[in-house]
This record gives sequence, C-alpha cells and structure tokens, in this order.
Amino acid sequence: MKVLLIGGTGTIGKSVADKLKTNHEVIIASKSTGDYKVDITSSDSIEQMYKDLSNMDAVISTTGASHFGHLSELTPELNEIAIDSKLKGQVNLVLIGQKYINEGGSFTLTTGIMMDDPILRGSSAAMANGAVASFVKSAAIELKRNIRINTVSPTVLEESLGKYGEFFKGFNPVPAAKVANAYVKSVEGAQTGQVYQVY
Amino acid sequence: MKVLLIGGTGTIGKSVADKLKTNHEVIIASKSTGDYKVDITSSDSIEQMYKDLSNMDAVISTTGASHFGHLSELTPELNEIAIDSKLKGQVNLVLIGQKYINEGGSFTLTTGIMMDDPILRGSSAAMANGAVASFVKSAAIELKRNIRINTVSPTVLEESLGKYGEFFKGFNPVPAAKVANAYVKSVEGAQTGQVYQVY
Ligand SMILES: NC(=O)c1ccc[n+]([C@@H]2O[C@H](COP(=O)([O-])OP(=O)(O)OC[C@H]3O[C@@H](n4cnc5c(N)ncnc54)[C@H](OP(=O)(O)O)[C@@H]3O)[C@@H](O)[C@H]2O)c1
Ligand SMILES: NC(=O)c1ccc[n+]([C@@H]2O[C@H](COP(=O)([O-])OP(=O)(O)OC[C@H]3O[C@@H](n4cnc5c(N)ncnc54)[C@H](OP(=O)(O)O)[C@@H]3O)[C@@H](O)[C@H]2O)c1
Repeated sequence: MKVLLIGGTGTIGKSVADKLKTNHEVIIASKSTGDYKVDITSSDSIEQMYKDLSNMDAVISTTGASHFGHLSELTPELNEIAIDSKLKGQVNLVLIGQKYINEGGSFTLTTGIMMDDPILRGSSAAMANGAVASFVKSAAIELKRNIRINTVSPTVLEESLGKYGEFFKGFNPVPAAKVANAYVKSVEGAQTGQVYQVY
Repeated sequence: MKVLLIGGTGTIGKSVADKLKTNHEVIIASKSTGDYKVDITSSDSIEQMYKDLSNMDAVISTTGASHFGHLSELTPELNEIAIDSKLKGQVNLVLIGQKYINEGGSFTLTTGIMMDDPILRGSSAAMANGAVASFVKSAAIELKRNIRINTVSPTVLEESLGKYGEFFKGFNPVPAAKVANAYVKSVEGAQTGQVYQVY
C-alpha cells in the first residue's frame, strides 16, 4: 500500500512509520522536517498535498497541537490552537482527502485518553479529541467507495513521560510500539468507525 | 435563582423556560428575539452579555447551529458553521462565563444523540456534540468556586419532527417537556460533568 503519514516525524509517527515501512511505501509529511511539508491548519496546504501526492491507500494523522493549561486561564484565543490544529486540521484531512484517497482506502486519526479520563489542564485537548472521535464514528457511515475511518486514542507514551509525565500522574504509560500497532490494525484491518483505545 | 437561558426562544428553550420560570427569575437571551440579544459566535458579544447581566446562578445554552449535509458535500467552510456556533459558541459561554457566574452556579450546554448514534448528514453536528460533551467532562474537574457543568443530549423532539423528522427515521422522538426536565435536573441538582441523555 501507499501510506501517507502526517506527523510521521513525531514520537508516535516515527513508531508507526517503523512498523509500516517494512511492507508498505510510507510517505512522511510534517510541518517542517518530513519528506513532504504540509500545514494541517491550512485547508489550502492540505488540498495541495493531496494534489501533489496522488494515489494514496491509507492516510494517517499522528499530529495535532493543543494548548495545555488550567481552565481558569483558558481563553477563547488559546482554545483556538486545538480547534485549528488537532480538531479542524485532522477533520479537514478527511473532508478534503475523501475526494483523493483510493477506493478501499482508510483514514486513521489521533485522539487521546483525556477525552474519557479527564486530566487537569486538559480541557482544550479533551474537546478536540471528543470532536474527532464523534466525527470518526459519524463519517464512517457516510464515506463512499469502501473508504474506512478510525481513530487511535493513546494514553501517555513511555517515550513522552519527560514531556507530559506531570500531566498524567497515576496513568499507566504504554510504549510507542504498542500504540503503533493500533494504527497498523486500522490500516491493515477492515473495521471502520472505531476508537482504538490504547490505555 | 437567577437563570440566564441562551436560546430561550427556540423549541427546547421555550420548554425549559416554562419549567424554570415558576420558581426562578429567567432571562431569555437569543440572537434576535429574546429579552437580551447575544450572538454566541462572537466572544465579544458573550463578554458584553455577562457584563450587562450580572449575578447569574445558572447559565443554560439551548442553542447552537450546525450544517446538516452529506459527508461528500461537507466542505471545511460548511463545517465552520458548527465549529463557530454549536462548538465554540457554547464552549466560550463557559470560558468567558466562569469569571462572571456566581459561586455555586451551574452551566448546562446542549449536545445531541447523533454523537453516539450517528445519522446520515450529521457528521458536522456529531463533531460539535462530541467536542462539547468531552469539554464538559473535563471542565467539570477544574471549575472553581463550586461551579458545576453538565450537558443535555436529546434525541429528536416530537415538536421538531416537521423540521428534523426525515433525518431521524426510526428514532423514538421525545416530548420537549421531557427534555426540559434534564435541564432542571442539571440546574437544581448537584451533579457535575454529566451527559444527560434523553433518548
Ligand atoms: N505523546 C503522547 O504521549 C501522546 C498521548 C496521547 C495522544 N497523543 C497525541 O498524538 C499526537 C502526536 O503526538 P506526538 O507526541 O507524537 O507529537 P510530536 O512528537 O510533538 O510530533 C508532532 C508531529 O506533528 C507534526 N506537526 C506539528 N504541527 C503540524 C502542522 N500544523 N501540520 C502538519 N504537521 C504538524 C510535527 O512535524 P515537525 O516535526 O515537522 O514539526 C511532528 O511530525 C498529538 O495529537 C498528541 O496529542 C500523544
Ligand atoms: N430540536 C431537536 O429535535 C433537537 C434534538 C437534539 C438536539 N437539539 C439541539 O438543541 C439546540 C436547540 O435546538 P432547537 O430545535 O430548540 O433550536 P431552535 O428552535 O432553532 O432555536 C434556536 C435558538 O437559538 C437561538 N440562536 C440561534 N443562533 C444564535 C446565536 N448565534 N447566538 C445566540 N442565540 C442564537 C435562536 O434565537 P432567535 O430565535 O432569536 O433567532 C433560538 O432561541 C440545538 O443545538 C440543536 O442541535 C435539538
């Protein structure tokens, strides 16, 4: 398969790329350091990417930024970061990509545990995750040409404890390789509309 | 209690107002026809409303627009309707309102069944509903001064079958008065972080 992996230079993305590249052609897209440069916060940039990189069988997003901060300090402006990136960025990869992806192709987006198991300073990310998860469940019943869609919802990664550990006190971290398997299941399996929790 | 009901001129809102006004002071806000005019798609308009109408014990939103349309025709632009109104409009009522609402006050937002039980042409609304539901669960653990937050998730209303019936074939409609009770439970009860399904 030809796999487009947006965010493939990140912690989760690198692990997904490692698993998939043994038997697929994987194109790594990211904001500044990938094989292909795309900014998911711009729908023009997404459209251009699909025009440039045609003939995809799987589109995976392991990206999406959010502001982490206490609710009392979360302004509408700071909340826009998650809306523009994790929410609209990922949803627009599907809205635009549904015209370009091959018949029988799949979309796999990334959410995260805090939508189910809230953490302090996580309301904006939880909001974006909940949006993406409900969109995935709904889009799955409408995608044409046997196109599928799922989302992977990881808990905190072992590899990210240095960065996010203090937000996830008491959570059991999982290795990136285990999280990456859920993306493989989404791409190589036949399910659709699923939220794969890796908790 | 002093209750601010945004969207109080609509189908759900009128029924909520009827139930609450017997023993509370209810101020009806809406875009064009309420006692107070507010546009929830503008954070300036929301901020101005809280400045003008001080001393609220409960803030209820029974509003939020979304575009209903097939996924294949859902563009990023059409998807913005739900993001600006049902999603950001309602979330911003909380982000801004948390500074103004009285100690021990409550926020009650509106979502809807299609986030759990998807319908054709409902992806954009499902996305907004999922965002609001996850935000509510997360914000509940961070709100200060004993402020609570819940969301009511109604199925289609009997009173709205003329307008929405063809989207909800096979769904069991509920009367507005039953949906309104969930808002009363949120305002008069003590729970927080709940999604009250009225299905
Ligand atoms: N790490 C965890 O513990 C964890 C747990 C649960 C959920 N998640 C979620 O998983 C996703 C990835 O997390 P991660 O830790 O792997 O992230 P990361 O290491 O920070 O990597 C982010 C990736 O996204 C790319 N990117 C950033 N902004 C972009 C944009 N506007 N357009 C296109 N690409 C962009 C980056 O590209 P460049 O390198 O070129 O800048 C990079 O490839 C996030 O949504 C995160 O919330 C992570
Ligand atoms: N009706 C149903 O069967 C049903 C089922 C599940 C969920 N819901 C959800 O419940 C909510 C209310 O539904 P409804 O059927 O009661 O709606 P509705 O009858 O169309 O009423 C909408 C209300 O929102 C106000 N409004 C619209 N845009 C606004 C804005 N930008 N700023 C402030 N107020 C605005 C309207 O004010 P004006 O009158 O002044 O224009 C009106 O008071 C929606 O989110 C809907 O998705 C409805």
